[in-house]
Amino acid sequence: MKLSDTIAAISTPYGKGGVALIRISGAEALDVGDRIFFSSSEEKLSKKEKGRMYYGEIRIDGDSVDDVMAVYFKGPNSFTGEDTVEITCHGGILVTQKVFGAALMAGARAAEAGEFTRRAYINGKMRLSEAEALGNLLEAKSDTQMILARNGMRGGLADRTEKIYLSLRETLTSVYAAIDFPDEDLSEMSRDEICETVRDSLENIRRLASTYGTGRAVNEGIPTVICGRTNAGKSSVYNRILGYDAAIVTDIEGTTRDCLKESATLGKTLLRLCDTAGLRETDDVVESMGIERTKAEMSQAGLILAVFDGAKPLTDEDRGLIDYVINVLDTPTVALINKSDVSEHCDMKFITDTFENTLRVSAVSGEGFSELGELIDRLFIDGDIDIKNDAVVSGARQYASLKLADEALYSALCDLEAGIPLDLCCVAIESALSYIGEVDGRELGEEIVSEIFSKFCVGK
Amino acid sequence: MKLSDTIAAISTPYGKGGVALIRISGAEALDVGDRIFFSSSEEKLSKKEKGRMYYGEIRIDGDSVDDVMAVYFKGPNSFTGEDTVEITCHGGILVTQKVFGAALMAGARAAEAGEFTRRAYINGKMRLSEAEALGNLLEAKSDTQMILARNGMRGGLADRTEKIYLSLRETLTSVYAAIDFPDEDLSEMSRDEICETVRDSLENIRRLASTYGTGRAVNEGIPTVICGRTNAGKSSVYNRILGYDAAIVTDIEGTTRDCLKESATLGKTLLRLCDTAGLRETDDVVESMGIERTKAEMSQAGLILAVFDGAKPLTDEDRGLIDYVINVLDTPTVALINKSDVSEHCDMKFITDTFENTLRVSAVSGEGFSELGELIDRLFIDGDIDIKNDAVVSGARQYASLKLADEALYSALCDLEAGIPLDLCCVAIESALSYIGEVDGRELGEEIVSEIFSKFCVGK
Repeated sequence: MKLSDTIAAISTPYGKGGVALIRISGAEALDVGDRIFFSSSEEKLSKKEKGRMYYGEIRIDGDSVDDVMAVYFKGPNSFTGEDTVEITCHGGILVTQKVFGAALMAGARAAEAGEFTRRAYINGKMRLSEAEALGNLLEAKSDTQMILARNGMRGGLADRTEKIYLSLRETLTSVYAAIDFPDEDLSEMSRDEICETVRDSLENIRRLASTYGTGRAVNEGIPTVICGRTNAGKSSVYNRILGYDAAIVTDIEGTTRDCLKESATLGKTLLRLCDTAGLRETDDVVESMGIERTKAEMSQAGLILAVFDGAKPLTDEDRGLIDYVINVLDTPTVALINKSDVSEHCDMKFITDTFENTLRVSAVSGEGFSELGELIDRLFIDGDIDIKNDAVVSGARQYASLKLADEALYSALCDLEAGIPLDLCCVAIESALSYIGEVDGRELGEEIVSEIFSKFCVGK
Repeated sequence: MKLSDTIAAISTPYGKGGVALIRISGAEALDVGDRIFFSSSEEKLSKKEKGRMYYGEIRIDGDSVDDVMAVYFKGPNSFTGEDTVEITCHGGILVTQKVFGAALMAGARAAEAGEFTRRAYINGKMRLSEAEALGNLLEAKSDTQMILARNGMRGGLADRTEKIYLSLRETLTSVYAAIDFPDEDLSEMSRDEICETVRDSLENIRRLASTYGTGRAVNEGIPTVICGRTNAGKSSVYNRILGYDAAIVTDIEGTTRDCLKESATLGKTLLRLCDTAGLRETDDVVESMGIERTKAEMSQAGLILAVFDGAKPLTDEDRGLIDYVINVLDTPTVALINKSDVSEHCDMKFITDTFENTLRVSAVSGEGFSELGELIDRLFIDGDIDIKNDAVVSGARQYASLKLADEALYSALCDLEAGIPLDLCCVAIESALSYIGEVDGRELGEEIVSEIFSKFCVGK
């Protein structure tokens, strides 16, 4: 992959549509455009006004392939920061491929996934966490995800990270001054003052890192296991949260045997749901394999929804589940007393006393599910964070870098407090600085950058 | 559906992509654009230059939904002929729907399938057969289909039809003059001359209608049945023409039981292929049902590919098939002597003598299939037609109108020649004129126009 290449891609989704957009970017984009686009006046696109759309046709070897609109932008005033040509053609699958093919034959190379955005990043049009936020916008399935992504695209996280980075770098400069000129007044900061500013930076890093709980709940989701005895209504709860009949529901015990998985946003939190086989003693081989898997899923969960049949007294299986969740696992759990639409017969008080979070719900009528959303948001979303405007860490990569910065800076602080020579402390501070620089891509290896953009679609 | 409404649609295919395009058209398109699009200078889109792309954001209730590029065109200089706004947003599924939703909230109505093109037609931006050709371009799967569609979009058929229409209308005017002023010199044409021009028009209509054989072969395709005894290699031939392993192929007789159907272009001709159960006596119930279906398909076919195993002597089943195809059916047939890659053992001469078209092929190596394409093109594509430039009737609707015009005009001609009074002859000529007017939509009921555009996708 050479950055000096001129690249082209179909930037609209694959499939039949009214129109499709082919994007060409790079030093020779205008040449490629001139070779394939012919306006009615036969004047070359590059001789026309930039930013204006022109009607004309795409030709291959003199043959007209399609009537299109074409526009060009001059770098650095384009998405990628390079010269860019955009061609809007008719959206048939074959005709779109022909127009794309014309661009390739005229000298462009097929772009790799995310290569346009990567060039925008490399050319300083956006910082890495902004590019990642753009990726999240393309993937967004809930309003909260969209709001968070827009926040990141506007630089919410990048600005905050930059502030921490610059402040720490200033500290480091002072420390170096203190090392180089120990006797002069150039060292503006005492060891105590250095400790103070490092402590500040550490606190800022930790505060920022702590927003990842919320970012993760919104973007990556909480692995959530729906469990309970057979026929408590687990699959009905699963279907209700998903909003459609994903799991087969019958009155027959043991209907669900595989672990069914799908994601849905409830409140602001993305739940990576797992509907499981009901827990009971059984001779059915498939079913007991299912129960084994249920237990495996429960041990990995970030949230357990324990479903009880509100219309029936608690059984031994119910009590077994309660014991397992309360005494074996240490996972946030919500007890759902289902079937609130029929008269209550189970021991509500026992459940309410045992679980910290209990809700009466009806998977049939939908009662209680908006309350469930609010409850889950309280568990996973930090209410003090303004998702629209505050800096929020919304990806595991960014979080990992912040945690490493945290560790390095904490060890630097310990060294500083222990009176260890300043030049030895500097190594850890340097390392912390470099980890923070990774968050917005200021200091990041080629390989990781490649990996980040490879998750984008082709044409972005 | 009101034509005065301002309409909006996502014009790019559904799915995740780099970018998506939302199109708004109608009298209030600019108002809608102004309500949702905010450029960095906060100047309204409608106050900016037309045809130029501007960067800005889409807002709903003050909240920024996405960063976009927007452009507007003033009618009649737009695709639809109306004021049009086009917004290129990021191609996430949710974000695209939000931007589209913003347009709806701002006063646009969701466009129906084909409504943009329909407006272009109504506003005189394209004739009906040109719009139909555009529809064909969007559907095109072969180069020949694309070339034919581009020809139609450039008005190949519309121009030719218009010429016939105008010439016949002129004749009709002369005939009316002859009726109204029988004694004066205003009647420029004698009955003989009228007969002559009607005969000319009839010939032109017939010549044009005859191109439908080619248009149909390219666009709609020839129902083609692949038949033969078990294990002759029918499914291998089917897979070879399709270019991938669509049918399961084994050495076991009776592998294919259902009629498998798929389309592929061979040469210039689209084959609507049907792979069938091998013909043999069998006790297997499913298989014999399959054989019944094979016979039903064969009786409906436009082309039969009779496959013989070139590596084995002809069997009674082979002879039964030959007898059925030659003596019962009257369908163009190509005999394919398969397995040309292994040594020949079947009675080539008998087959060559019996069938008009015989080819040795190997479904395994692909030998003989380009010859098969040429042979089929000779059967269905009129070699005298220049698909790139000549007027070609490429749809059943256009053909049906021409055939009705043909009938009406022929009856008018018979009446004229039989000396029937001119005013009586006029009725049939009027009717022919109206049928020709249907081809390019000059005279066509609302209902049929609706049906034509309903086949388009939403956003076109």
